[in-house]
Amino acid sequence: MKGEFELISGIRKLFPQLPEGVTGIGDDCAVIPQMSGTDTLVSTDMLVEGVHFLREDIHPAQLGWKAAAVNFSDIAAMGGEPVGSFLSIALPKDISQDWIDGFLSGYRDISQRYGFPLLGGDTTSSSSGVCICVTVLGRIVSGGGCLRSAAVPGDLICVTGPLGDSAAGLQAILRGIPREGDVPYLIERHYLPCPRIQEGMRLAANPDVHAMMDVSDGIGSDLRHILEESGVGAEVDVRMVPVSAGTRRFCQANGLDPLDMAISGGEDYELLFTIDPSGERPLDVPHFVIGKITDSPGIVWSGSEKDYTGFRHF
Amino acid sequence: MKGEFELISGIRKLFPQLPEGVTGIGDDCAVIPQMSGTDTLVSTDMLVEGVHFLREDIHPAQLGWKAAAVNFSDIAAMGGEPVGSFLSIALPKDISQDWIDGFLSGYRDISQRYGFPLLGGDTTSSSSGVCICVTVLGRIVSGGGCLRSAAVPGDLICVTGPLGDSAAGLQAILRGIPREGDVPYLIERHYLPCPRIQEGMRLAANPDVHAMMDVSDGIGSDLRHILEESGVGAEVDVRMVPVSAGTRRFCQANGLDPLDMAISGGEDYELLFTIDPSGERPLDVPHFVIGKITDSPGIVWSGSEKDYTGFRHF
Repeated sequence: MKGEFELISGIRKLFPQLPEGVTGIGDDCAVIPQMSGTDTLVSTDMLVEGVHFLREDIHPAQLGWKAAAVNFSDIAAMGGEPVGSFLSIALPKDISQDWIDGFLSGYRDISQRYGFPLLGGDTTSSSSGVCICVTVLGRIVSGGGCLRSAAVPGDLICVTGPLGDSAAGLQAILRGIPREGDVPYLIERHYLPCPRIQEGMRLAANPDVHAMMDVSDGIGSDLRHILEESGVGAEVDVRMVPVSAGTRRFCQANGLDPLDMAISGGEDYELLFTIDPSGERPLDVPHFVIGKITDSPGIVWSGSEKDYTGFRHF
Repeated sequence: MKGEFELISGIRKLFPQLPEGVTGIGDDCAVIPQMSGTDTLVSTDMLVEGVHFLREDIHPAQLGWKAAAVNFSDIAAMGGEPVGSFLSIALPKDISQDWIDGFLSGYRDISQRYGFPLLGGDTTSSSSGVCICVTVLGRIVSGGGCLRSAAVPGDLICVTGPLGDSAAGLQAILRGIPREGDVPYLIERHYLPCPRIQEGMRLAANPDVHAMMDVSDGIGSDLRHILEESGVGAEVDVRMVPVSAGTRRFCQANGLDPLDMAISGGEDYELLFTIDPSGERPLDVPHFVIGKITDSPGIVWSGSEKDYTGFRHF
């Protein structure tokens, strides 16, 4: 691999586009002019080799994509517009230049797809595995962000797309299942999630939409955050949780419960939101209703005997 | 150690104070209202066990302090006012709760000392060592940031304080030298650097001050960044580089070159800036003049035969 300054200079060339008036890579800080009447949104996530990914299993370009995607998903979850990202990465001394180039190409692909610039970061060596920390900035009209604390009893609970594909894809990887039939689609959903940025901006602009977050740990866990922050409860009909045909077939063939994937699996990066019932029918964003907000604490799961909970790191 | 959610809830309690109108820990993003007429400053740094610190050598409270300090130093280097920080940390499963509590207490101490809130972050497990990534936000009046690219031939080159103490302290640690005499002072300068925030704000408000950065890799390396970004050169008189009495004595006793410590050592986190000569004498910030900016590329070191260069990670 190249030296530190060559690496930074290579990154700078890969990400040339900068918004008007912004100072990016090359100084002590990025400098971003502020627009009055807006709020700055900031989110940060860390991805650790051996915990969030196995270097021998994920293509570096997929990892680069995903590292950015999960963070922009947090901006989407507030309804914000991305401003740019900061990439910090610790690299073992024995890592190949091909791996670094692949990682950066994936990070650049998603940055170009969604039109957000790389504004800074840090590069360092690592004495063990790869560690990646991405910080993203976004903006939204002042007070316009959809907080987790805004759910109201009577709201319908919705998601923007099918759940469980990513978890099924992960199972396919872990079990070494041949990459044919539904499997390539599921693995792509695991490795190349699409942050719901346009959907989030549209939902946040709709006054009937109350609480919102992205599905990272699985709705069994994520929904609890909305309930705790809002001081409310929920009833979820598991039969209404959207599960793709691919996940259903894959689970049947491999002895897995598709609802386990959909509810406890996580990493779908769809948006989970609550909406006043009067606003649900005219909503101009594709969505599925899975339950409603109540005023008794906790989640009542109907349509199943099972208690579904989300993934925890520790 | 406690579980993930208990850890986050503990952190939230340790850092209760939030600026008016700011949403911090507990949602997808932090939300920070913008002030018109200001620029947002962002900086991020990663600290990796075995590269930037050895867990058996540094007290966790010192590490917590330093992780925040090096980032706020980048805000100081632009002349900005800190807004708040984001702390991401990957922790091995076998780490003790005492270690985590110690780390957080150091991080809280510096946050309180300088009055900046913790606004968010990420916690995860690690399959190997500790990895820390801190992102800080600051603000400055629009266009008021002191960029590295602003040095002009004829400017004087200055630093805000003595250089080399931190590198001498690191040598004392690495060589296991008894902690007596000058050594405790030098080790404190290594582990508990003070970001020059007030100095940076005052310097940035002075129109005679042109380029500025903080001394993290050593002026031998750092000054080159200013020269490259500004398209200028420099003459430095090494006899004018400020070296503390403690570092001089320590180096003499241990066969080290004090100028090596001061020029190539790094991690002093003093500010390195250039200033129009007419503005130097009336300057209301303590400083030392070490040379001047010229129009021929590169650095001419006078007062020594030696070529001093900075530390590189790779």
